Amino acid sequence: MAEYHGLSHIFTTTETSLYNNLFKSPNPPFHSPTALILEISPNPFPQTNHTTTNFVPIIKNNYNFDNLEILDHELETYRSKFNGHGHDNSNNCNVYVAGLVLVYPSYSSFFEKPGLFLDQMFVRKCYRGMKFGKLLFSAVAMQAQKMGMGMVELFVADWNEETINFYEKMGAHYILEYRLYNLYGDQLQAFGKKSD
Amino acid sequence: MAEYHGLSHIFTTTETSLYNNLFKSPNPPFHSPTALILEISPNPFPQTNHTTTNFVPIIKNNYNFDNLEILDHELETYRSKFNGHGHDNSNNCNVYVAGLVLVYPSYSSFFEKPGLFLDQMFVRKCYRGMKFGKLLFSAVAMQAQKMGMGMVELFVADWNEETINFYEKMGAHYILEYRLYNLYGDQLQAFGKKSD
Repeated sequence: MAEYHGLSHIFTTTETSLYNNLFKSPNPPFHSPTALILEISPNPFPQTNHTTTNFVPIIKNNYNFDNLEILDHELETYRSKFNGHGHDNSNNCNVYVAGLVLVYPSYSSFFEKPGLFLDQMFVRKCYRGMKFGKLLFSAVAMQAQKMGMGMVELFVADWNEETINFYEKMGAHYILEYRLYNLYGDQLQAFGKKSD
Repeated sequence: MAEYHGLSHIFTTTETSLYNNLFKSPNPPFHSPTALILEISPNPFPQTNHTTTNFVPIIKNNYNFDNLEILDHELETYRSKFNGHGHDNSNNCNVYVAGLVLVYPSYSSFFEKPGLFLDQMFVRKCYRGMKFGKLLFSAVAMQAQKMGMGMVELFVADWNEETINFYEKMGAHYILEYRLYNLYGDQLQAFGKKSD
């Protein structure tokens, strides 16, 4: 993702940092940062045991991909360790991660509405062109509706024509050209020191 | 605010819609959309009774504005109804609203950090040039630090040189040029129908 945007130099995510910064909220899904993982399997999905996890599948469909040639060279890397009943480290889980979307609840003064902010949507390269992006985005839009929210907000880099076309096809309206500013690191810490 | 951005045509906020969409969260402040109101008074502020409200003043300072000429033609409109002990409709409260900032908790995949998203910051025209913007922004940055967050994110319209200069002076880094897209109204509802 960082590579895609040419921003690898400021990208420092590790498995540990993700673990520390996400998924620790006591809130139910979609009331704090929430990831939807797109998993695929050549077999029917195992029955999910809801009582042992706070994970509930949003959409579960059987698509027929028999006529598509999928060549995933990184199958093992993306093999899911979640077999429907908890984590399974035995590597006998025939389920693979093809993409994800990460959202959090937002609010817009302009639209005077609460909404979902789509922070990241990613479909792995070998799974593009199969309408998985539409599937993920639909799940987000349907969730926003279900929660009585008025919008799904997102930002696209202005050079990213392909993604702009995608969201326009999804029905999203182009509102404004913005610059993203971020106060972090030493500059952020300087504010903390002032309050000592 | 909508006028300032030339977007009055899509702006539909009313007092009722604000009431319905904000301030109903059971979460403590800064765990859902939270507004900081900048109030000023020629008199010392009344003692705040914390036990009757969930409002806690973040910064309370006595600045000397004696050498500044403040001419607020809309004093009555912006007279605060909050006298420190609850709402007071008797109009004898000598406190006035000069500005506000509205934030909500966010998360950035790039920065792999939770943060505060600054949705809106506004200082009324007759109170500009008095460093109130810096005061509000500092309160947000200090709050982000206090909560162990790694950033304060914000977006500025690319034509808005004055605001860009302000945030750069505050230490914020310009990251990317973005387009804001928003799925709302009929286009959003269309996704709900698909799931029926």
